[in-house]
Amino acid sequence: MLNNQTIVALATASGAGAIAIIRISGPEAIAISDSVFRSIKNKRLLQQKTHTLHLGHIVENHKTLDEVLVSLFKGPHSYTGEDTIEISCHGSTYIQQQIIQLLLRKGCRMAEAGEFTLRAFLNGKLDLSQAEAVADLIASDNEASHQIAMQQMRGGFSNEIAKLREELLNFASLIELELDFAEEDVEFADRTQFQELLNRIELVLKRLIDSFAVGNVIKNGIPVAIVGEPNVGKSTLLNALLNEERAIVSEIAGTTRDTIEDELVIGGIGFRFIDTAGIRETKDIVESIGIKKTFEKIEQAQVVLYLFDSLKFQVQSSEYILEIEKIKNQFPLKPLVVVINKIELLSTDTVTQIKHQLQPLNVILQTISAKENIGIEDLKNQLLSFVNTGALRNNETIVTNTRHYDSLLKALDEIQKVKYGLEIHLSSDLMALDIKEALYQFGTITGQVTNDELLGNIFANFCIGK
Amino acid sequence: MLNNQTIVALATASGAGAIAIIRISGPEAIAISDSVFRSIKNKRLLQQKTHTLHLGHIVENHKTLDEVLVSLFKGPHSYTGEDTIEISCHGSTYIQQQIIQLLLRKGCRMAEAGEFTLRAFLNGKLDLSQAEAVADLIASDNEASHQIAMQQMRGGFSNEIAKLREELLNFASLIELELDFAEEDVEFADRTQFQELLNRIELVLKRLIDSFAVGNVIKNGIPVAIVGEPNVGKSTLLNALLNEERAIVSEIAGTTRDTIEDELVIGGIGFRFIDTAGIRETKDIVESIGIKKTFEKIEQAQVVLYLFDSLKFQVQSSEYILEIEKIKNQFPLKPLVVVINKIELLSTDTVTQIKHQLQPLNVILQTISAKENIGIEDLKNQLLSFVNTGALRNNETIVTNTRHYDSLLKALDEIQKVKYGLEIHLSSDLMALDIKEALYQFGTITGQVTNDELLGNIFANFCIGK
Repeated sequence: MLNNQTIVALATASGAGAIAIIRISGPEAIAISDSVFRSIKNKRLLQQKTHTLHLGHIVENHKTLDEVLVSLFKGPHSYTGEDTIEISCHGSTYIQQQIIQLLLRKGCRMAEAGEFTLRAFLNGKLDLSQAEAVADLIASDNEASHQIAMQQMRGGFSNEIAKLREELLNFASLIELELDFAEEDVEFADRTQFQELLNRIELVLKRLIDSFAVGNVIKNGIPVAIVGEPNVGKSTLLNALLNEERAIVSEIAGTTRDTIEDELVIGGIGFRFIDTAGIRETKDIVESIGIKKTFEKIEQAQVVLYLFDSLKFQVQSSEYILEIEKIKNQFPLKPLVVVINKIELLSTDTVTQIKHQLQPLNVILQTISAKENIGIEDLKNQLLSFVNTGALRNNETIVTNTRHYDSLLKALDEIQKVKYGLEIHLSSDLMALDIKEALYQFGTITGQVTNDELLGNIFANFCIGK
Repeated sequence: MLNNQTIVALATASGAGAIAIIRISGPEAIAISDSVFRSIKNKRLLQQKTHTLHLGHIVENHKTLDEVLVSLFKGPHSYTGEDTIEISCHGSTYIQQQIIQLLLRKGCRMAEAGEFTLRAFLNGKLDLSQAEAVADLIASDNEASHQIAMQQMRGGFSNEIAKLREELLNFASLIELELDFAEEDVEFADRTQFQELLNRIELVLKRLIDSFAVGNVIKNGIPVAIVGEPNVGKSTLLNALLNEERAIVSEIAGTTRDTIEDELVIGGIGFRFIDTAGIRETKDIVESIGIKKTFEKIEQAQVVLYLFDSLKFQVQSSEYILEIEKIKNQFPLKPLVVVINKIELLSTDTVTQIKHQLQPLNVILQTISAKENIGIEDLKNQLLSFVNTGALRNNETIVTNTRHYDSLLKALDEIQKVKYGLEIHLSSDLMALDIKEALYQFGTITGQVTNDELLGNIFANFCIGK
């Protein structure tokens, strides 16, 4: 994968659009493009400045394939750091294919997944965690995940890690120095300052590690189970929850509705309503609350909405209360919201009375009218309140990547070993080993320490053309 | 639709890709973009030269939306002829939406379908038939349709029409002049030369009109019906026909297989195998050849392949011959190829014998082995031979657009009226009316004559962003 060939790929989404971008990068990028491009001003690409645009035609054997616009970037002033050409052609898949095939015949090879970004990393244009953020950015589908990816791509996360690494490196070299003078028993590294640094690093690591909880939620969304007997208004509630969001999305053409239908973004956090298709279709009966299926659904969820019909409550309140008790006892740590639906049909007094009856259960209550869109905003805020978005609001670095999370856990482990070593006055040589290990873990995050297998794994998850 | 606002749209295919392009055009394009763009070199877009590229960030209220590359084009040196900005952003649909919504808030409005190209037309960057070719180019999915659209976009068709129009205009003005001197009975326009010109125009119009037959075929493909009893090898034949093509297509990621499966491109011409899904699944029996369903299928087709099993022929030759006769009599003008399958199971002598028996039917015979891939190339060439691709091979102008076809037919009608008028020595004033009408028809093709409704119809068929 790592070589000096010139690579080509379609960089825009596949399928037909008004225009498409074909990206070429590598030592021969400009020469190969020049060999198939006829500028309308008769200019040769090889003689043009970086960051310029050129109108002309892609020509093979006097046959014009397309009228195109060529963007020219000279290394190192490009995304990859290499000479790069971007051909903006008409967006028919036929034309895209023809131009790419022509470039392959002229000496390019197809880029592998993520290869442009890999080259950017290898050429020092971005570090490894920034490169990973590029993929996250492309995959981001809500404000929070976008914001975190953006912060990481701009180096926020790397800077934080790099700073810790540098300070630790500083001490490490002092301790290494002590090894050289081992027989003289000197201490170049001030143990009190070192202790302080280790405490600071530990704190930062713990904060970053803790942030993974919200990071994970932001990246993957929170699964929510809506349970309750049939015809209680589950689908109406789901529609009420999704409605507004869907309207915003559909303003822009081309958004697929499939992925939206079951996911709702509240305050930048994605909530996934699991098995909602099932909920909508199911003809399960009330009693099913005790059965396996519903419990399985709740098991997969992080939050449970128990929905009931306020009219029916008056005749079967004891059944409802029993069911809620069952859920509470089975999943004592899982946030549960009891949602009282159809309040538009009741007087305020009756609603108050129902609330009063449920009070002993000590659960969160939310009255709504899914039909009349009453209480939906409150319910959304309730859902959001389960997520600790403090770090997000304060624009702190949030860890979303499992690989980073693993490295941070390992680094914390090593740092705690070093701390313990310091306490028991461990010899410098043994302590140096633990410090090295911690430094190594920091290095794997930013890519200062790496290997082909790791890179292969990371970039294989990219799309082709990036 | 026609106004001076600044418009914005996603120009690349919808969905997530590595990168996406957002296009902005209009008087405020650069100013609006400048208001949300922070160049990494601290340059203002308003002060930059045309055809330059700028790296920076899209920023709203100190929040960075994305790192982007901005292409700057100053009118009239742009696609639309107006100031134009293209923002190359990361390809997440979330980012696309956020940037577009920001630009809308800053004073852009969403572009309507085809509005960029409409503006290009209104600003004289291309004529109407060229503008129409842009949509054809994007829709082109094979060599022939691509080649024709490309030729038309580069002005081949317009030039041909414009030349005729100019010559006719020349005579028209001479004849108009005669009107001014009507009482003196002079003839400024040389009637012999005029006759020659009219003959020439008539020839060209007829050629263009005739070309619509192949143009239509190129644009829409030729429907082919494969008929025959079950298990005769219809699906194997279809796979053999499609196989090679499919392999080529699948080299490039992102090609949808659905559209390929039933369409085969031979020599740049698309052949659509109608109701092939039905053919593959159907358990219709031999005798069904006489029934309604099969005949309906043949009615929809332009070419019929009648497939039979050469082994079975030996025991039921009379049935086969009867069926072929039926098809021939029912559709006497429809090209029919009798395809003799499974010849790998027979001796050469037997095959010759079968051919001999079928000779009196006076149909085209093709022996194949769908399984062993024998005779498939010959069959493809046979299919291609039904299309007169002479115009295509000779790179002549081919009419593919129904609107152009209609205008050409009307123009021909008027030219023939003028010719007749000349023969019967019609008065100049009446002849002038017919000439005007012919000129009008030419003008509608290139867009010298137009109106809002016509433009609306044409550009509504474009995609948004073009």
